[in-house]
Amino acid sequence: MLKKRNKKRTQEHKKHIGQVPGTLVYTGKKSDKDFQVECFDYTKDDIEETILLNIEDAVNYKDTDSVTWINVDGLQHTDKIEDIGKQYDLHPLVLEDIVNTTQRPKIDEYEDYLFVVLKMLYYDVNEEIVIEQVSFVLGKNYVLTFQEAEGDVFGTIRERLRYANGRIRGLKSDYLLYALIDAVVDNYFSIIETLGNKIEDLETELFTGHAREDVNIEVQQLKREILKVRRAIFPLREIINRIEKGEHPLIFKRTITYYRDIYDHLIQVSENIDIYREMIWSLMDMYMTTISNKMNEVMKVLTIMSSIFIPLSFLAGLYGMNFEYIPELKYRYGYFVLLGVMFTIFIGLLIYFKRKKWL
Amino acid sequence: MLKKRNKKRTQEHKKHIGQVPGTLVYTGKKSDKDFQVECFDYTKDDIEETILLNIEDAVNYKDTDSVTWINVDGLQHTDKIEDIGKQYDLHPLVLEDIVNTTQRPKIDEYEDYLFVVLKMLYYDVNEEIVIEQVSFVLGKNYVLTFQEAEGDVFGTIRERLRYANGRIRGLKSDYLLYALIDAVVDNYFSIIETLGNKIEDLETELFTGHAREDVNIEVQQLKREILKVRRAIFPLREIINRIEKGEHPLIFKRTITYYRDIYDHLIQVSENIDIYREMIWSLMDMYMTTISNKMNEVMKVLTIMSSIFIPLSFLAGLYGMNFEYIPELKYRYGYFVLLGVMFTIFIGLLIYFKRKKWL
Amino acid sequence: MLKKRNKKRTQEHKKHIGQVPGTLVYTGKKSDKDFQVECFDYTKDDIEETILLNIEDAVNYKDTDSVTWINVDGLQHTDKIEDIGKQYDLHPLVLEDIVNTTQRPKIDEYEDYLFVVLKMLYYDVNEEIVIEQVSFVLGKNYVLTFQEAEGDVFGTIRERLRYANGRIRGLKSDYLLYALIDAVVDNYFSIIETLGNKIEDLETELFTGHAREDVNIEVQQLKREILKVRRAIFPLREIINRIEKGEHPLIFKRTITYYRDIYDHLIQVSENIDIYREMIWSLMDMYMTTISNKMNEVMKVLTIMSSIFIPLSFLAGLYGMNFEYIPELKYRYGYFVLLGVMFTIFIGLLIYFKRKKWL
Amino acid sequence: MLKKRNKKRTQEHKKHIGQVPGTLVYTGKKSDKDFQVECFDYTKDDIEETILLNIEDAVNYKDTDSVTWINVDGLQHTDKIEDIGKQYDLHPLVLEDIVNTTQRPKIDEYEDYLFVVLKMLYYDVNEEIVIEQVSFVLGKNYVLTFQEAEGDVFGTIRERLRYANGRIRGLKSDYLLYALIDAVVDNYFSIIETLGNKIEDLETELFTGHAREDVNIEVQQLKREILKVRRAIFPLREIINRIEKGEHPLIFKRTITYYRDIYDHLIQVSENIDIYREMIWSLMDMYMTTISNKMNEVMKVLTIMSSIFIPLSFLAGLYGMNFEYIPELKYRYGYFVLLGVMFTIFIGLLIYFKRKKWL
Amino acid sequence: MLKKRNKKRTQEHKKHIGQVPGTLVYTGKKSDKDFQVECFDYTKDDIEETILLNIEDAVNYKDTDSVTWINVDGLQHTDKIEDIGKQYDLHPLVLEDIVNTTQRPKIDEYEDYLFVVLKMLYYDVNEEIVIEQVSFVLGKNYVLTFQEAEGDVFGTIRERLRYANGRIRGLKSDYLLYALIDAVVDNYFSIIETLGNKIEDLETELFTGHAREDVNIEVQQLKREILKVRRAIFPLREIINRIEKGEHPLIFKRTITYYRDIYDHLIQVSENIDIYREMIWSLMDMYMTTISNKMNEVMKVLTIMSSIFIPLSFLAGLYGMNFEYIPELKYRYGYFVLLGVMFTIFIGLLIYFKRKKWL
Repeated sequence: MLKKRNKKRTQEHKKHIGQVPGTLVYTGKKSDKDFQVECFDYTKDDIEETILLNIEDAVNYKDTDSVTWINVDGLQHTDKIEDIGKQYDLHPLVLEDIVNTTQRPKIDEYEDYLFVVLKMLYYDVNEEIVIEQVSFVLGKNYVLTFQEAEGDVFGTIRERLRYANGRIRGLKSDYLLYALIDAVVDNYFSIIETLGNKIEDLETELFTGHAREDVNIEVQQLKREILKVRRAIFPLREIINRIEKGEHPLIFKRTITYYRDIYDHLIQVSENIDIYREMIWSLMDMYMTTISNKMNEVMKVLTIMSSIFIPLSFLAGLYGMNFEYIPELKYRYGYFVLLGVMFTIFIGLLIYFKRKKWL
Repeated sequence: MLKKRNKKRTQEHKKHIGQVPGTLVYTGKKSDKDFQVECFDYTKDDIEETILLNIEDAVNYKDTDSVTWINVDGLQHTDKIEDIGKQYDLHPLVLEDIVNTTQRPKIDEYEDYLFVVLKMLYYDVNEEIVIEQVSFVLGKNYVLTFQEAEGDVFGTIRERLRYANGRIRGLKSDYLLYALIDAVVDNYFSIIETLGNKIEDLETELFTGHAREDVNIEVQQLKREILKVRRAIFPLREIINRIEKGEHPLIFKRTITYYRDIYDHLIQVSENIDIYREMIWSLMDMYMTTISNKMNEVMKVLTIMSSIFIPLSFLAGLYGMNFEYIPELKYRYGYFVLLGVMFTIFIGLLIYFKRKKWL
Repeated sequence: MLKKRNKKRTQEHKKHIGQVPGTLVYTGKKSDKDFQVECFDYTKDDIEETILLNIEDAVNYKDTDSVTWINVDGLQHTDKIEDIGKQYDLHPLVLEDIVNTTQRPKIDEYEDYLFVVLKMLYYDVNEEIVIEQVSFVLGKNYVLTFQEAEGDVFGTIRERLRYANGRIRGLKSDYLLYALIDAVVDNYFSIIETLGNKIEDLETELFTGHAREDVNIEVQQLKREILKVRRAIFPLREIINRIEKGEHPLIFKRTITYYRDIYDHLIQVSENIDIYREMIWSLMDMYMTTISNKMNEVMKVLTIMSSIFIPLSFLAGLYGMNFEYIPELKYRYGYFVLLGVMFTIFIGLLIYFKRKKWL
Repeated sequence: MLKKRNKKRTQEHKKHIGQVPGTLVYTGKKSDKDFQVECFDYTKDDIEETILLNIEDAVNYKDTDSVTWINVDGLQHTDKIEDIGKQYDLHPLVLEDIVNTTQRPKIDEYEDYLFVVLKMLYYDVNEEIVIEQVSFVLGKNYVLTFQEAEGDVFGTIRERLRYANGRIRGLKSDYLLYALIDAVVDNYFSIIETLGNKIEDLETELFTGHAREDVNIEVQQLKREILKVRRAIFPLREIINRIEKGEHPLIFKRTITYYRDIYDHLIQVSENIDIYREMIWSLMDMYMTTISNKMNEVMKVLTIMSSIFIPLSFLAGLYGMNFEYIPELKYRYGYFVLLGVMFTIFIGLLIYFKRKKWL
Repeated sequence: MLKKRNKKRTQEHKKHIGQVPGTLVYTGKKSDKDFQVECFDYTKDDIEETILLNIEDAVNYKDTDSVTWINVDGLQHTDKIEDIGKQYDLHPLVLEDIVNTTQRPKIDEYEDYLFVVLKMLYYDVNEEIVIEQVSFVLGKNYVLTFQEAEGDVFGTIRERLRYANGRIRGLKSDYLLYALIDAVVDNYFSIIETLGNKIEDLETELFTGHAREDVNIEVQQLKREILKVRRAIFPLREIINRIEKGEHPLIFKRTITYYRDIYDHLIQVSENIDIYREMIWSLMDMYMTTISNKMNEVMKVLTIMSSIFIPLSFLAGLYGMNFEYIPELKYRYGYFVLLGVMFTIFIGLLIYFKRKKWL
C-alpha cells in the first residue's frame, strides 16, 4: 500500500520537461471519466440549466447580459479545453495551467478576466486525502470552472441558483465566484476536523500508554498529510488577499466584504493546521518519552531480578565448593542459618529498591 | 476525562458547511441558559439601568444623545440576535460572526459602526481554561456586547458606571468600549499568573527529582493550554493596533492614549506567554534528562552488583567442580585463602567503582 | 531557596486587575526604604545640589533656564509620586506606569515631555540578578527620574555634573537624559560579562568531564537568567531607535549621534545575549551526550564483565555436575587442562573487546 | 569515495584571493574539453546556424536587425572569453563572474545589457548532482550564453529555432532569453523528482523496518544534496522577480507573462525542496526511534532470559551446596518436587511478561 | 588551554563602564608592538611612500590633490591616535570606536568623511581564529586605516599602488577604500575554506565510524568558531549595502559597481557560513546516532552472551544438585545426552539471533 501511495506522488512532480510553453499537457490521472460541460445561465428572474453537448455552444453565453456559470469536468480532453479557451480568448499559459494539475494555487490578472487556480480537498473511500484542482475564470458576466473529474463541493451552489429568491441570483458574476470559492473553503473545515480527530486519537493512545508498536509510523503519516494539506491551502490566503484588495475592475466593492469573510476562514484553517503541526511534534516527543520510559521499566525489572539473585547465587555457590575443610558445612544448622541470611539479604534488597521507588 | 475534553475540541471545529453565507448558526454549547438583555443608558449626570424584556425596546436607545451599553447574554437564541441586528442595521456577516463562537478575534470596520470579536478567558471549577466569545459593536453613542452566557468580567465596569463621579460617565462610547476591552485584557493577567504557577510547580518537581511518573503528560497538557491561550490572545494585538491608529471616526483622539495602554498590556501578556512556551520546552528537556539520569542510575546498580558477584561466583563454581584431582581442595586452609581472595576482589572492585564515581 | 525565587516571580505578574485605569498601584517590593528627592540644578557655570524635603519645592525648577535633574527614590510612596506628577502635569497613565514596576520598557511621546521606562540590572549579594525599574521624564529643561529604591548606577553622572568643565554641564536636558541612559546601558555590559563567565565555567566543567550531577539544573537556571535579561534589555533597542530618529522636538540634532552610540552598544549587548542563548543550547547538547557516553561506559563494563565470566562459570558448572560417569573428571590433569581452556577463553575475549575498542 | 567528493567541494570555495579585481581566473575543473562558439542568427523568415571558428566573427552579429544567439562552451579559455567580452563591451567584473564558476546566481543590470548567472543541474553517471554554471548576456538583439563545457539542456530550443513556424522565431531576444532560462528551470523538475524518489525509498526502508545499518549516512548525504540544490536554485527566484518587474528596457511587456510563468515554476520547485527538507528531518526522527525500538527489543530479550533463569539457577545452586544436613536432599521425591517448583516459577514469569506485553 | 582561551574571551566583553563618553580606552591586548604610521601619497603619475615619524606630518596630506593612504598600526597608543584624530577633525566618538576593539562592524556617515569599522580574520600559528579590528576613515582625497598591530592583508594593495599602470592609481579615494575592503573580504574566503575542511574531516571521521571519544568537543568548538566568524562577518553586509546605495557624496557612481561586487562576495561567504552551521547540526546528529548505535551493539553482545549461557548454566547447576535421588545422574550416558541437549540449545539460540539480524 505504501508503494502505491509513493508512486502517485512521484507522478505529481512530473512536468512536460522540454515542451514548448503553451502546449497543453494533462498531468493528472488518466481516467475514462467523461467530458461534460454544465451550464447555468441566470438573471434575477430567470434561470436556464443545460448540459452542453456541443462545446461550440459555450461561446453563445459570453456576451449576454445574464450571468453564466460554465462548469467543465474532465481535463484529460485537452483538445476540447483548448476549444473553449479559444472561444473565451484565454491566454495559452492559462490553458496550460488549467490542465497541468500539479499547478500551485495562484491568481493571474488579465485585462478582461481573472484566472484563479485552487485545490479541492476531500477524503476518498480509503480515508486518504485526495487533491483535485479547480480552475476559475471570472469574466464580466460569466464564470468558467474546470475540474479534473465529476463530483465536487458545489452542490449547494447549484441548489441556491435554482431558487429564485436567493441573494446569489440577484448579484453579478463576482458574487458567483465568491460563492464557489467559499464552498471550496468551507469544505476545508471538514478536512481539518478529520485531521484533528486523528491527532486526538493518537494522543489518547499515547497518553494512556496503550500505544501500538507502529504508532510512530502513523504519526509520520499524519505529519505528511498535514504537510500536503498545508501546501494546498496556504497559497490561497495570498490569492484571496489579492482579490480582497479590490483593484481588479471585475470585483465590485460590495462583494469585497464577502471575500474578506473567506479570508478570515482561511486564516482560521491555517492557524488550525499550524497548531496541528505543533501537536504532531509534541506527539513525537510523547512517543520518544514513552519508549524511554518503557526501556527504563525493562531495565528496572532486569536490575531488580539480577541484583537480588546474583548475590544469593554466589552464597549458594560458595557452599557448593568441594574444599575438604569448610567448617560451616559441618554445623548442624548451617543450612538453615544460611537460608536465614539469604532471606535477610532478599528483604534488605527489596527495601532498598522500594526506597529508590523502583518497585 | 480525556475523552470528554477531546469531544469538546472537535465540536469547536465544526462549521455550518454548505450553508448560505449570512445564515445564523450558533456553534457553541447548547445550554438552557436564559437569554437576557441588560441596558445601561447614561449621561454625565444621569444613569438608567434596566433589563430589557422586549428586544424591540433596544432600538429606542440607538439615536439618543446619552451613551448606551446593551449587553446581550445567550447566543443560542439566534432569532433574537437577528432582531437586534436588524434594529441596529448590522451586516448579515456581522451577525453570523457574533453567533459563530469559533470565530477568530477580529475587527471589522463598517461605515457607522466598528465590530470587534474577542475571547474572554477564565478557569472553570475543574481548573480548565474556558474560552468565551464576546463581540462588541461600537456605534456613535452606543456599545453592544454579545456574550455566550451570563457571567463575565465586566462587574467593575457596571460599578463604575453607577457612580456619578467616575471618568467613564463623562466620556463617550469609545471610552466605554476601551473600558470593556480593558476589563477583558486585565483578566488575561490572572490566567497568565495561574499558568506561571503551574509551570513553576512542575519545574520544582523536576528540579527536586521527585517527579511523578506521568509528569510528561502534565507538561504536554500545559503546552496545549498555552497554545490555546496564545491563539485566543495573540490576534488581539493586531486589533488594538488597528484601533490605536485612530483612523476610524468613532474613536476620538483623546481615547487613543488609553488604547495604547491596552496595547502595552497585551505585549506584556504575549511576552509572558512566549516565555512560558520556552520554559515548557525546557521542562521537556529537564524531563528527558531526568529519565536518562534515572536509567543511568539503574544501569549502575546492575553493573556494580553484577561486576562484583559474577567473578566471585565463578571462583566458587571453580571449586565446586568434581575433578578427582584439584590440589587446592586438599589444602587445610584452602577455603579461607579463597575467602581472602574473594574479599580482596570485592574491595578492589569497590575501589574501582568509587574512582569512577559510580558509588 | 527555589520556593523563594518562585514566589517572587509570581508577584511580578500580579496586576491591579479590575482597577480604574490611572489608579496608582505600587507593584514592587514593599520595603521600608525612605522616600528621597535629590535635585541637581545647573548651568554651564553654576550648580546647586539639594535634597528636597518638601515635594512642593520640585515645581520651582520646572520653568527655569537652568537644567534640572530631579531624582526620586522610593516608588511605594504613591501619594508623593502623584504630587510631583501634578506639579509637572504628567498624564495619569504615566504615573500609573512609573509605580507599576512590572511595566515593560517603553517610550511614550507627549506634547511637552518624553516618558521612558527602563530596567536597571545588577547582581545582588546572592549573585542573583535584580531588576529595578527606572522611569525618565524629559522636559524642556528638566529630567525627572524615578527609582524603586536608593542605590543606582548614576554615581559617575553626579560626579561629572559637579565638575564645571565637563561636556555635560554645557549641554541641555536631552544630553543629560542620554548620559543617564548611557549609564544604565553601560552597566548591562557587566551583567553580560558575569553571564559569560558563568557559561564558560559550566562549559569547562562539561568539556573536562568533571561535571557534577546537577549541572543540568544550573544550565536551566542560567537559561532562565538569560531569558530574564533578554526581556529587560531587548525592548530598549526599539526605544533608543525611536529617540534616534530625532522626531521629537526635545531631542536636539547634535545629541542624536550620542544616542546612536547607545544604540550600537545595545546591539552589541543583544548580540552577546543571543550568542549566550545559543551556547546554552550547546551546553544542554553537551550534557546529553555526556550522559549518553557515561551510560555507554557503564554498559561496556557490565558487558565485558558478564561476557567474560558467564561462559567460564558455565564451564565450572559443567564439571560441578554429579553425573556418575563424566570421563573428564577422572583424568589426572583434567582440572589443569580446564584451567588452561578457561584462560584461553579469557584472553580471547579480552582481545575481542580490545579490537572493538571497548577497553 | 567520500574523500573524493570532499576534495571537490573544497575546491569550490577557492577564490582568486589577493588578485586585482577584474582579472579573469577560471575556477572550475580544468578539463581538456574544447572551446566552441555556436551561433544562431535568425529572423522570422530566416535562420543561419554556424560554428564560429574565429572569435572575431562574433562581433558581426552585434548590431544586426536579426536576433542572434551565441553560445560559448569552455570557460577555461579565459583569453578567448576576454576577446568576446571586448567585442561586446562587457564590464570587466561581468567577465570575471562568467569564468568564476563559484559565482552565486545573480542578475546585474547594465545600461545596454542584462547579465544573468544561473546554475544548470543534472545527475552524472554516478548518480551525483553536477552543478554547471551558465551565464547569459541579453543585448538589444542578441543573447550570449557561456557554459563550462559542452552538453546542456538547450536541445529543444535549438530544435524550435530551426523550425520557421515556432513562436520563438517571431519574437525578440528577450523571448529567447526566457526560452533558455525556462529550459534550465524545466530541468530542475527532473532533479526534484529524483530527489523525491530517493527520499521515498529511504522512507519505505525505515517504515518497513528493513533499514540497513548505514541508512543514517544515506540520510545525511541526501540532506547535503538537498542543501546543494537549494543553494543553486533559491537565488533564482529573486532574479526572475527582478526581471518580471519589467523595469529594464530590454524586456518587453508582452514577454513578462512568460517570466511570471517561470517564477511560478520556481516557487513550485522551492516548495518541493522545502518539503523534502522537512521530510528528511522526519526520516532522522524515524531512524532514531527505530534505533531506540531495537535497543528496547534487545533489552527485553536480555531481561526475559535473565529474569527467568537467574532465580532457577539460584534454586539449583541452593541444592548443590555441600552442607551435611540439608533435609530436602534426603527426600525421595525432593528432586521432582523442585523440578515442579521451577516449572511453576518459569510459567509464572512467562505469564508476567506476557501481561507486560513484552512477549 | 581551555582556561586560557576563556580568559581571552572574557576580556573581550569588558568595556570602560562608567567612563565619560568620548574617552579613549584601548580594549585590545596590551602588546609591546610599536606604533607605526605608513603613508602612501599618489596621483596617476607619481607615488610617494614614507613612514611618518612625526604624527604631526600626517595633516599635511589632508587637503592635497593627490590621494593619500595613511595606515596606523598600534592602537594602544591612544594619545597618538587622538593627535591624528584632531588633525583630521574626527568626532570623539569615532576615536573612541577606533581604539575600542570590541566594537561591532559598523558604518557612520559624517558630513565630510565616512567611518567604517571591520574585522580582519586570520588563523594564528595555533590554528585559532584571530579577529583584528580595522577602522577606515574615507575623506575627500584620503583614506585613514587603523589596525591593532602590524601585519595585515593589504600587501597586494601596496604592490598595486607602487606600479604606475594599475587602475587603482588612476582613481579616487573611494576606489582605494573599495580595494582595501575587498582585500579584507577576499581573506574571509580562506577562513571559510579552512572551516569547510575542518567540518569535512569531522564528517569523514563520523561517517567511517572511527570517531575519537572527544569528537563531540571538537564539534562544539567548531560550532563556537563559526559563531565567532559569523558575528564578525554578518554586519558587514549591511555596511556595504549602505555604501552601495551610493547616497554619500564621497562615493562616486562608477565605484558603486565594485562595491556591489563585494556585496556579492559577502552574500556568498554568509551563505557558506549558514550552510556550515547546518552541517554542524547534522554532525551532532550523526554523533548522537553513532553513540546510540554503539550502545546498541554493546547491548547485543551482552544479550547474546547472557541469553546463550544463562540457560546452559542453569542446566549444569541442575545436575550439580546433591539430591539423593536424581535418576538422570545414574544413566550411563546422561552426561553426553545433556551435552547434546546443551549444544542443541546453543545452536538454536544462535539461529534465533541470526534471524533477528543481531549477528
